[in-house]
Amino acid sequence: MASVSIREAKEGDCGSILRLIRELAEYEKLSDQVKISEEALIADGFGENPFYHCLVAEILPTPMESQGQGIGTKIIRKVAEVALDKGCTQFRLTVLDWNKNAIGLYKSLGAQDLTEAEGWHSFRFEGEAMRELAGK
Amino acid sequence: MASVSIREAKEGDCGSILRLIRELAEYEKLSDQVKISEEALIADGFGENPFYHCLVAEILPTPMESQGQGIGTKIIRKVAEVALDKGCTQFRLTVLDWNKNAIGLYKSLGAQDLTEAEGWHSFRFEGEAMRELAGK
Repeated sequence: MASVSIREAKEGDCGSILRLIRELAEYEKLSDQVKISEEALIADGFGENPFYHCLVAEILPTPMESQGQGIGTKIIRKVAEVALDKGCTQFRLTVLDWNKNAIGLYKSLGAQDLTEAEGWHSFRFEGEAMRELAGK
Repeated sequence: MASVSIREAKEGDCGSILRLIRELAEYEKLSDQVKISEEALIADGFGENPFYHCLVAEILPTPMESQGQGIGTKIIRKVAEVALDKGCTQFRLTVLDWNKNAIGLYKSLGAQDLTEAEGWHSFRFEGEAMRELAGK
């Protein structure tokens, strides 16, 4: 079992975070949607009113694959802990319907699929649509 | 046409905001999910690091119904403007699959249904599941 420690992200992690975002998007077949730069990640996450908070899992190198080491579960446990400490009553994740591994994990940890159970759909405005709406 | 002005919410609006949250939840047949109090709305939205930002539409009283006055569109335009000013590249909404009025409005304004187009599902952890995860 690899040794995993989870901590808050630092500015210097943004290069690695961007690499992980790109790897995830590749897995999700959505690489064309990754438009963010390392500079923007730093500006958005480490300014006065950060747009996001981030945890990173540090794994001691072992000859084993990192998949299947329970890292996802450990991060989700940590998110629950941080969320409760901040006074949150719930937290949400979004996942692609074909990503059965992730869905199985989230359900096994007690999450409910709101899209399936209640019919929630996620809508996105971006780029041209936003500028048109704002008259810019 | 009713006269509508849109402005940032103030602490004193939280009573009315809670009433609107309850009315929306009733329409969505999800009233049992509204657990927040006016005090929590004030604490979460008007502290040092607010959990949410809120716009309110003020409508001059007229004998007409407020529905169909284009208030939804005006608020969405304002959200797009605020989002662009803050450097956001997109904004998202969630909507129940049977709420054809809202879905029609969002699509007509240029939003994409990510659940339909890409298969995104929304998952929620809450209450007991969160406490168990966090070991609390």
